[in-house]
Amino acid sequence: MERTQYKILRHAYGFDEIALVPGDITINPDQTDISFVIDRLVFGIPILASAMDGVVDARFAAALGKLGGLAVLNLEGLQTRYADPEGVLDEIANAAPDRVTQILQRVYSEPIKENLIGDRIRAIKDGGVVCAASLTPANTKRISPLAAEAGMDILVVQSTVTTARHMSKSYRGLIFSELVKQLPVPVVVGNCVTYSSCRKLMETGIHGVLVGVGPGAACTTREVLGVGVPQATATMDCAAARDDYFRASGRYVPIISDGGIRNGGDLCKAFACGADAVMLGSIFAQSKEAPGRGNHWGMATPHEALPRGTRIRVNINGSLEQTLFGPTSVTNGTQNLVGALRTSMGVCGARNIKEMHQTEIVIAPSIKTEGKYFQLSQGLAGH
Amino acid sequence: MERTQYKILRHAYGFDEIALVPGDITINPDQTDISFVIDRLVFGIPILASAMDGVVDARFAAALGKLGGLAVLNLEGLQTRYADPEGVLDEIANAAPDRVTQILQRVYSEPIKENLIGDRIRAIKDGGVVCAASLTPANTKRISPLAAEAGMDILVVQSTVTTARHMSKSYRGLIFSELVKQLPVPVVVGNCVTYSSCRKLMETGIHGVLVGVGPGAACTTREVLGVGVPQATATMDCAAARDDYFRASGRYVPIISDGGIRNGGDLCKAFACGADAVMLGSIFAQSKEAPGRGNHWGMATPHEALPRGTRIRVNINGSLEQTLFGPTSVTNGTQNLVGALRTSMGVCGARNIKEMHQTEIVIAPSIKTEGKYFQLSQGLAGH
Amino acid sequence: MERTQYKILRHAYGFDEIALVPGDITINPDQTDISFVIDRLVFGIPILASAMDGVVDARFAAALGKLGGLAVLNLEGLQTRYADPEGVLDEIANAAPDRVTQILQRVYSEPIKENLIGDRIRAIKDGGVVCAASLTPANTKRISPLAAEAGMDILVVQSTVTTARHMSKSYRGLIFSELVKQLPVPVVVGNCVTYSSCRKLMETGIHGVLVGVGPGAACTTREVLGVGVPQATATMDCAAARDDYFRASGRYVPIISDGGIRNGGDLCKAFACGADAVMLGSIFAQSKEAPGRGNHWGMATPHEALPRGTRIRVNINGSLEQTLFGPTSVTNGTQNLVGALRTSMGVCGARNIKEMHQTEIVIAPSIKTEGKYFQLSQGLAGH
Amino acid sequence: MERTQYKILRHAYGFDEIALVPGDITINPDQTDISFVIDRLVFGIPILASAMDGVVDARFAAALGKLGGLAVLNLEGLQTRYADPEGVLDEIANAAPDRVTQILQRVYSEPIKENLIGDRIRAIKDGGVVCAASLTPANTKRISPLAAEAGMDILVVQSTVTTARHMSKSYRGLIFSELVKQLPVPVVVGNCVTYSSCRKLMETGIHGVLVGVGPGAACTTREVLGVGVPQATATMDCAAARDDYFRASGRYVPIISDGGIRNGGDLCKAFACGADAVMLGSIFAQSKEAPGRGNHWGMATPHEALPRGTRIRVNINGSLEQTLFGPTSVTNGTQNLVGALRTSMGVCGARNIKEMHQTEIVIAPSIKTEGKYFQLSQGLAGH
Repeated sequence: MERTQYKILRHAYGFDEIALVPGDITINPDQTDISFVIDRLVFGIPILASAMDGVVDARFAAALGKLGGLAVLNLEGLQTRYADPEGVLDEIANAAPDRVTQILQRVYSEPIKENLIGDRIRAIKDGGVVCAASLTPANTKRISPLAAEAGMDILVVQSTVTTARHMSKSYRGLIFSELVKQLPVPVVVGNCVTYSSCRKLMETGIHGVLVGVGPGAACTTREVLGVGVPQATATMDCAAARDDYFRASGRYVPIISDGGIRNGGDLCKAFACGADAVMLGSIFAQSKEAPGRGNHWGMATPHEALPRGTRIRVNINGSLEQTLFGPTSVTNGTQNLVGALRTSMGVCGARNIKEMHQTEIVIAPSIKTEGKYFQLSQGLAGH
Repeated sequence: MERTQYKILRHAYGFDEIALVPGDITINPDQTDISFVIDRLVFGIPILASAMDGVVDARFAAALGKLGGLAVLNLEGLQTRYADPEGVLDEIANAAPDRVTQILQRVYSEPIKENLIGDRIRAIKDGGVVCAASLTPANTKRISPLAAEAGMDILVVQSTVTTARHMSKSYRGLIFSELVKQLPVPVVVGNCVTYSSCRKLMETGIHGVLVGVGPGAACTTREVLGVGVPQATATMDCAAARDDYFRASGRYVPIISDGGIRNGGDLCKAFACGADAVMLGSIFAQSKEAPGRGNHWGMATPHEALPRGTRIRVNINGSLEQTLFGPTSVTNGTQNLVGALRTSMGVCGARNIKEMHQTEIVIAPSIKTEGKYFQLSQGLAGH
Repeated sequence: MERTQYKILRHAYGFDEIALVPGDITINPDQTDISFVIDRLVFGIPILASAMDGVVDARFAAALGKLGGLAVLNLEGLQTRYADPEGVLDEIANAAPDRVTQILQRVYSEPIKENLIGDRIRAIKDGGVVCAASLTPANTKRISPLAAEAGMDILVVQSTVTTARHMSKSYRGLIFSELVKQLPVPVVVGNCVTYSSCRKLMETGIHGVLVGVGPGAACTTREVLGVGVPQATATMDCAAARDDYFRASGRYVPIISDGGIRNGGDLCKAFACGADAVMLGSIFAQSKEAPGRGNHWGMATPHEALPRGTRIRVNINGSLEQTLFGPTSVTNGTQNLVGALRTSMGVCGARNIKEMHQTEIVIAPSIKTEGKYFQLSQGLAGH
Repeated sequence: MERTQYKILRHAYGFDEIALVPGDITINPDQTDISFVIDRLVFGIPILASAMDGVVDARFAAALGKLGGLAVLNLEGLQTRYADPEGVLDEIANAAPDRVTQILQRVYSEPIKENLIGDRIRAIKDGGVVCAASLTPANTKRISPLAAEAGMDILVVQSTVTTARHMSKSYRGLIFSELVKQLPVPVVVGNCVTYSSCRKLMETGIHGVLVGVGPGAACTTREVLGVGVPQATATMDCAAARDDYFRASGRYVPIISDGGIRNGGDLCKAFACGADAVMLGSIFAQSKEAPGRGNHWGMATPHEALPRGTRIRVNINGSLEQTLFGPTSVTNGTQNLVGALRTSMGVCGARNIKEMHQTEIVIAPSIKTEGKYFQLSQGLAGH
């Protein structure tokens, strides 16, 4: 009986299944360049904050911008549904675990107020920083011109899975090649996880791609839909698309690894997998400046028919500045992320993010064993 | 010393070891077609209920049928051994864990009453739905004509492992090619897990195949017999047999993935692995309409000499309608299964189940990591 | 810089990482033949009991022999060090966990009494069964003639790792080719785990090989020495040696898979991996007839300088007869082992142990999932 | 769409994922030679103690040296920052878990006293043993001449990752080829984990290499930096470099596997992976002679901005002599390490460390199963 090969299954890897291999030369951390560019905008550090209501409001966006990063404000969340969202944020923070999804479903049923969109954007611009804001594809055509007019510098079009083509009988989908011509600001689109969908998005002329479906702390997409690609593999596949597209077109479209980053180690791995920047949710939700009062939830959690996500309680861990630059007495890798990235690049012999992309990666068990000590910092500081 | 290769071991995968890869295009969930066909019978949703006494009685079968699915009644279970099984169901539900196997052994030693077979089938038909009922191979020749006469629309012949050929000295085994000629209704046979045994069953002329040996929640077959193939691989292998048989014969025999489905994610994966429909046990045992009072046990549990299975306590989770169609505030993937399937198909770019078979699958670690949020529903609803 | 391949690492598998694949035909369990032959001795069931002091004494050996199996008495254990070992067995059973190794070290420092060797062998022979007894290589030359004279039917020469050649300055090692000529009884030797060491042992003329280093419940060899091969791979490799040796010499030397069998499922897998018989320790220690009072410990546990092993508390689970033949209400696979083996062979389409060697094996995750029920026994009994 | 391969991921293995395969011949443990050579210095046992402040002080170094091993004193730790470090050691031992990192940061901010360097070295030499001491690359040029003058016999230059070339704008890095010419004592350098970085270090003329980045018990480098290679693979890769360099140059530079060794089994595996010696931290921290009072911490734990490591509480397990040579009633492999190594070599048929390098290794699951007993010691002692 002759048999056809039905399907070939490829192995995909998450950050906790891989580890970085040190280089043949080492570099002093203070000599590394970690800047990041979207279109013509340059950022001091390659770290974005997720457009989640427990993470980003105008105050947080200003604080992160001043430290060199970029926060994305969700234009379809609590900040544009409520003139004063503080009471609702308290209610979410205080909800009992078995009631929280219902409460989220209720508070997110409040309509979006168009006037608040401009207000929130202006509040960020008043902070003196670059303003990025997100919309779902469904609302992009209608709301993005308003947002651009209010001063938005970067548009993020985001849904769980966004592709260059969407099929619908009832309406005409968003055409990214038209959007980028009409809007006066760069457009970042996501999320995607495969080589071909990433490359097709790049070919529409957009300016950045968010990579990641499924790894989020506050998300249960893999349980509910079965869909998701572990983040190390997703990042590498989209990095391959970026490099091939660059070779073919001469245009370099950065990719932002969005999801699955729990600590500095994961962040460093994302860059070694080919990311130009990373987007953080749960780590930033742990900072004092985040609006979530130590809580974190996904934007699909409030869905009325098929909620996919949970509210996660995170501890408030310190200030945003400590999270990014230290100093710290926390040893689990959730503080001084920039110090960790520079040190990791030093150990891997990478002078900049593009050299970090060349770092060798091994598949390694996630469980730790014992017996060794380290003199890393001294060694690197003055080797 | 020259050495012979003794045996080649192939990797087999369960649903929790794989994940689905989004497509290059996305489709609005409301445009997906999820109908399912056995012989000439068409069902609105591709979901069957297992012929287990904690899951299906006549009332449940009518309820599921009205919602578009198909329940299979066990003709060798409590429903045909007791005119009024409610007392026995109470006793099982109330049994202490260390006593339950003995109690099951006792209550299942009551003989099957032939008159009850017709009664139960007529009760289902009175509900106005298609009636499917199951027999073991040993009893099929004797009981199936009675059942057909009483109005049974589909016969399911089921044992742990059923093959096209069974060897016995003492009696002549069931010949499926004869059975399908004699019976006026379509015949579904199972269970099997390999390409060749599935294809040989299809070649007998039967009308559907149940796929799955070993993954069940209420079963300890792997511990007791060492036998079992993880369900993702089993489904893919039998799907290959179906497709090859279709190419060779022109006859399309659907396969039903039976076992190992714990939530919507697993259900979506079963279709991506090639299933035409799925059969659910423990998820349906959690519905209010199930006769098990929040308990679930396998049909080999009562075996007098070698019980293989345990009674599992499941929580009653909501109505059958909520389980299938929502709305829900449950985020673990056990409610709104149809919504989950349609959304997953939308994300994977599949307009129908046959296109869902083409979805790319990766081997992925089953442990979740963190950092990401989702705007799936909004994105898909209006992209 | 050119680089040499330093070492190639092969994957090895334990029983809990594999699963058996059902066959294309099924066979009624009552038609299977599970007899086992060593030299000219035929046993009704292919199951041996380990030469461990918590498992085998003369009474246990008689009981197992009458049921068709074969127990091996340890001639260097408590039974030959103490005329009445009951008090010592009580002391071991009652010892606190943190004291037990020291107590074992003390009670095993009592010398072996040569007169007790004959007594114990005669006690087994008085039970009317075949008598197998074990010695370490160091004591074989001296004690084995006494044992043979007392009526021993099979000699087992056993140490953790036994090879055809042992290097020592101080004395001349045991030469198996001489031993088999001198002794009037068949000789079984072990343990080994590789193709080449197994084949070299067979080439000395011995009559059976024990396979297994490291998997035992009561042993910590992998922690202490780093040595051990997972049992499924070890069994397959030695089965390959047996088959190749048979093809080359015409002599069939059975292999006995010794270690790592926790339940009926593992036992069935051992045969599918190529075993002619299995040796059980911890399962038999759970029977009422075992001398260990529900305790189990290895023969390297009492070592004065480098103890490798622990006393394991096991529950007393029923009689030896129940363990082997049922009936049972236990569903975890530790009772009715013979029923499980015959049923598994039926499902795999194997009429005898040699056909069971042909069963297909898959690598499968050890964690169970849910959703399925079974009608195995009915199905097989009357298909 | 043609696609470039972005990156190839190799599998890397830790000690708990591998197991050693017994040999075709066995050797009496008392015939094994386990001596170890650095440059012209010969040691009776191939075991070093890590330059950690919870493990090595002058008293410990003398004790280990007398037993045949070699302790490395950290010249940048508490012993050279405090004339009397006992009070500080008490404070660390008594610190609450949530305060310990801050306390470590404070006590390590005390400057190094040059006069204490000579004192500590002389104290070790007064013990009549070989004195090894460690420095970070940054301090090597300045302090190593003082240390050599005070009697240091071996210099260890150690940081988390040390490479033959370090890039810095502000100062000229350490040149190992110059260092080995200037210093009158052999130089051991580490740590490294790859073939090429190890070989480049050897080509500078140094006399030994420490292998291992990331596996330590007291370290969180993988969480913080993402960097680390599981220790079995790291050891094999550097062993390949050593052998290739030896073939090319005629000079044999030993490698010391440093990290990830939790018990005798891991230790034996390190040698089978190609190590010439091993360096132990946490196991030695469990001995009575260690200064840590049952505590263990890494040298990067006190780092002021990015602490990478934690204080681990270990139980005090016995004397150093018991740890190395037994006898013992401990069965978890943390005592009688030398007995374990000799026994393992006997089982693997290795007369010396170089033959142990030839041992076959399998990839094996780390979880134990059950059913087997052992008579190892008797068997080997008198086979």
